Amino acid sequence: MRISILGGTGDIGEGLALRWAFHSNHDVIIGSRDAEKAHTKADEYETELDSRGVDVTINGFENGMATDRGDVIVLAVPPYHVGDTVESIADRLDEDDVLVSPAVGMKREEEGFRYHRPGAGSVTRIAADAAPDDVPVVGAFHNLPAARLANLDAGLGIDTLILGDDEDATDIVRMLAEDIDGLRALDAGGIANAPEVESITPLLVTLAMHNDGLHDLGVRFS
Amino acid sequence: MRISILGGTGDIGEGLALRWAFHSNHDVIIGSRDAEKAHTKADEYETELDSRGVDVTINGFENGMATDRGDVIVLAVPPYHVGDTVESIADRLDEDDVLVSPAVGMKREEEGFRYHRPGAGSVTRIAADAAPDDVPVVGAFHNLPAARLANLDAGLGIDTLILGDDEDATDIVRMLAEDIDGLRALDAGGIANAPEVESITPLLVTLAMHNDGLHDLGVRFS
Repeated sequence: MRISILGGTGDIGEGLALRWAFHSNHDVIIGSRDAEKAHTKADEYETELDSRGVDVTINGFENGMATDRGDVIVLAVPPYHVGDTVESIADRLDEDDVLVSPAVGMKREEEGFRYHRPGAGSVTRIAADAAPDDVPVVGAFHNLPAARLANLDAGLGIDTLILGDDEDATDIVRMLAEDIDGLRALDAGGIANAPEVESITPLLVTLAMHNDGLHDLGVRFS
Repeated sequence: MRISILGGTGDIGEGLALRWAFHSNHDVIIGSRDAEKAHTKADEYETELDSRGVDVTINGFENGMATDRGDVIVLAVPPYHVGDTVESIADRLDEDDVLVSPAVGMKREEEGFRYHRPGAGSVTRIAADAAPDDVPVVGAFHNLPAARLANLDAGLGIDTLILGDDEDATDIVRMLAEDIDGLRALDAGGIANAPEVESITPLLVTLAMHNDGLHDLGVRFS
């Protein structure tokens, strides 16, 4: 499968790109608003993987071209760019594509990070509202520790929660998630349930702030 | 320490009562609006513990008398009774007491259980607002699997998140939490952070609905 990671130059995008390239046979494509930046980062990831004995090609493109080339398009962009990004690629999507939304809105307050719930209900819902009607959107990868994900020496042993209203699309994303060693995918129901999933992310940062020895946390349900 | 569990006849109250009586030397007191029900349940818990070779006295009282006798008072009542319950015991509290709020508001929708955030911001905040100014309130035990907690044969291996604005009080509750085998207490900062903590509870129910083989879930941060 061809996975295009828009915002694949950012922290969570980097981790997903490296993990899929390292643990699976999927083609990984890096998208960015800046094609040059996409190329440069794709080369960096290739070098990192090569140093671990993995000979793989990672291409970088401007977001629109990256979308053209992908079967699954991950919106690894900041939450306030999710709607614009989907609109900017809408005419490059077709009904066989799957959009994946991992972004979360949060704000720092004195006591910790708080969930910033958008008017639409969730960032995943913003993506779904902006997408063409025939293109399914799946929420996933919201609660991952970015630095740990991007460090291929680090173990995971954590869960990611999959949200979606299209069963075929959620099945594809669940499969992609479980292709990453140490990541377990759980079904969190429809996109209506996204607020409870997204709001874990600021809590992970808060817990790292307040507990010595805990940082870059993920979550496991058991 | 003397721990009075108001609503100690309900599911989460039962689990906390049995675990503290089983794993620690704290005195456990069961409170209920109905003194007779409190007596009956306290006797049941004693019998359960006796069957496991633990000879311990658990007393049951009407909530006000239970409050008089406790150092730590756990508000294990439904979320819509938290404010009323605190008001009903307010003149039995003194500044050496600690109130603990584990309740969470949630509602069932088609796709799963959703967090019902009260106007005050959180149920923990409702408890804090209703309590006398000199009595500290700590949020804790929100995300526990009730049936597993009440089954002394079941292992835990999960976390509870402690919320509070009074350091001495949160220290006491953290210690009480860690007296339960298999329960790790993490500091989640002040009561302002309670919405993100409370909203995990409906998600645990949603995940159990949607994933075969998972039920009565807790959460672990790592």
